[in-house]
Amino acid sequence: MNKKQSKSALSESENKPLSKNVSPVSAKRIRNFRKNKFSEEDLLKDLLNGNKTALGRGITLIESNQTSHQQKAEYIIEGALPHAHKSIRIGITGVPGVGKSTFIESFGSYLIGKGKKVAVLAVDPSSSVSRGSILGDKTRMENLVKEKNAFIRPSPSGESLGGVARKTRESIILCEAAGFDVILIETVGVGQSETTVHSMTDFFLLLKLAGAGDELQGIKRGIVEMADAIVINKADGENQKAAREAKLEFNRALQLYPPKESNWKPEVKLCSALYDQGISDVWEMITVFENKVRKSGFFQHNRQEQNKFWLYQTVNDYLKSRFYDHPEIKTALKEQLKLIEENRTTAFAAAKHLLDLA
Amino acid sequence: MNKKQSKSALSESENKPLSKNVSPVSAKRIRNFRKNKFSEEDLLKDLLNGNKTALGRGITLIESNQTSHQQKAEYIIEGALPHAHKSIRIGITGVPGVGKSTFIESFGSYLIGKGKKVAVLAVDPSSSVSRGSILGDKTRMENLVKEKNAFIRPSPSGESLGGVARKTRESIILCEAAGFDVILIETVGVGQSETTVHSMTDFFLLLKLAGAGDELQGIKRGIVEMADAIVINKADGENQKAAREAKLEFNRALQLYPPKESNWKPEVKLCSALYDQGISDVWEMITVFENKVRKSGFFQHNRQEQNKFWLYQTVNDYLKSRFYDHPEIKTALKEQLKLIEENRTTAFAAAKHLLDLA
Repeated sequence: MNKKQSKSALSESENKPLSKNVSPVSAKRIRNFRKNKFSEEDLLKDLLNGNKTALGRGITLIESNQTSHQQKAEYIIEGALPHAHKSIRIGITGVPGVGKSTFIESFGSYLIGKGKKVAVLAVDPSSSVSRGSILGDKTRMENLVKEKNAFIRPSPSGESLGGVARKTRESIILCEAAGFDVILIETVGVGQSETTVHSMTDFFLLLKLAGAGDELQGIKRGIVEMADAIVINKADGENQKAAREAKLEFNRALQLYPPKESNWKPEVKLCSALYDQGISDVWEMITVFENKVRKSGFFQHNRQEQNKFWLYQTVNDYLKSRFYDHPEIKTALKEQLKLIEENRTTAFAAAKHLLDLA
Repeated sequence: MNKKQSKSALSESENKPLSKNVSPVSAKRIRNFRKNKFSEEDLLKDLLNGNKTALGRGITLIESNQTSHQQKAEYIIEGALPHAHKSIRIGITGVPGVGKSTFIESFGSYLIGKGKKVAVLAVDPSSSVSRGSILGDKTRMENLVKEKNAFIRPSPSGESLGGVARKTRESIILCEAAGFDVILIETVGVGQSETTVHSMTDFFLLLKLAGAGDELQGIKRGIVEMADAIVINKADGENQKAAREAKLEFNRALQLYPPKESNWKPEVKLCSALYDQGISDVWEMITVFENKVRKSGFFQHNRQEQNKFWLYQTVNDYLKSRFYDHPEIKTALKEQLKLIEENRTTAFAAAKHLLDLA
């Protein structure tokens, strides 16, 4: 194994005097480098003081694919890390039209009224195509966006879910280091994105609509299992009866699932985000949850397990992409898949053939 | 990429005359090799004629970890492949005590009475520890084991689930090539083994017990979603009322799940394997299923997708084990996991550190 010397940005930041043997040109370059370094130090300092512009710039560095930006991002994340982890991270999912933006607007404003600092992030791997289908249009949260104690950031775009996930997770750390104590992470649930958001949050909230008889139809497999709460939105006006019926139905369905590792029993709540009704109930429930799982130690345990999961996930994703992105493997894979379709090879013989090429 | 010359056993089987330049010793070695080759040809021929001893020997070669055995196994699998795939593969799962052996005894005997040839395999990654907890004791199927048209094989042991899965999937091919047209694959459901068995079968059957109020409690997440049928066993004597209630409960629960890709609506059946009651109903249901999915093309499509899944699975498992089994990575991984527990690094920085070592 050859050990690459991948220096972290941090290792450069010591204030060594320049050697006398260094040429004036080099010296200038080095000074400029150090100056840039100091500007990251300033950025970090501002960020830790809760400056939203610095936070935004830090996240922009995380989202950049440029190596120099990535090194700066690493420096800032390392500096932010000891100050992070004081928040509760809440995942919010639901089909388009369920009122996620309205819910976050109402819920976020309520929390700010209670003295909280609220960051809203999104995980939307499709946003490269649809140009930011969620949170892209901040006008949908027109009150929240004006609040001093709110920070809203659309999904990083132009990336695979794995890339979006990494960037979002690192952004969470910066938000927390900047003093945001409630992190809302929204997803529309494209592909595996609910699972992704579930694996980076402490509490997972599924938004549903009242009405429409067969309540569980159309929900992707496994989503209900992941939910810590199902919140039925638009439970107002003529919808109220249907919403109450949906609540009963969901409560019955939830009882059929085995207990969660957290020992938390998922709850079903009604709300009308448009009329700010039922919002405080949702927060009270989450507070009860947080107290319970912090006391039991599950909260801390779960975050550690999530971090370990992401370590393995990152390594495995990289190993796979390195293998499958190789041109020779790509060609051979096509051939082997064709042989499989024609029943002319087994999955294992085909795999062996590919691995022998690598 | 350096292309390793990993010759398949097949490439050696051509009857080339020996070169005159070959030394007598080498010539003898080569002749012996060819002789062994011919003995595999005989084994394959016997296997294709339905000889159970040859089938058993073929599976023993698949289960062996010796390179020479693996080459022989490859030759036999390649020869068997064109003759396989005429069966229906049925996965059977359920908690210990639900009566899996009794059910298979009754169900298998019924099928043999209908002129079927029945192979019973097992997937039990724990069998290395518990020394064959399922099917290890053939006396639990004392009638079936005596049948000419039944073949019963315990789980390959001493292996990871991945290893057991590969061996079982290859064994299925040999069973099918030997003329077995119903393949029953039993699992106790340790870890991920139900998912594994689900991904190698056409029909997935969950055995349950009657009685005990909260019917879905204790079933692992996702198992009910995978089931094409829930069969409530021991629905006899005093259990009958409870069994009927359980059937209602399960039917209600199944309606809450979104439709399957196969368009098959999972059914709930009652049976008493001990008294051979309800067994024909189960088979009729599976026949209806098979006709339906063969007609729609899902049957063939699903098998192809399963094969492709196993190709990727095998490659990915290998890539991971090659990485994580490396001593240097093992040590570094421990260190990084500790840093994660102490909140001193991020999952992504830790992953990068490990990948830089490789």
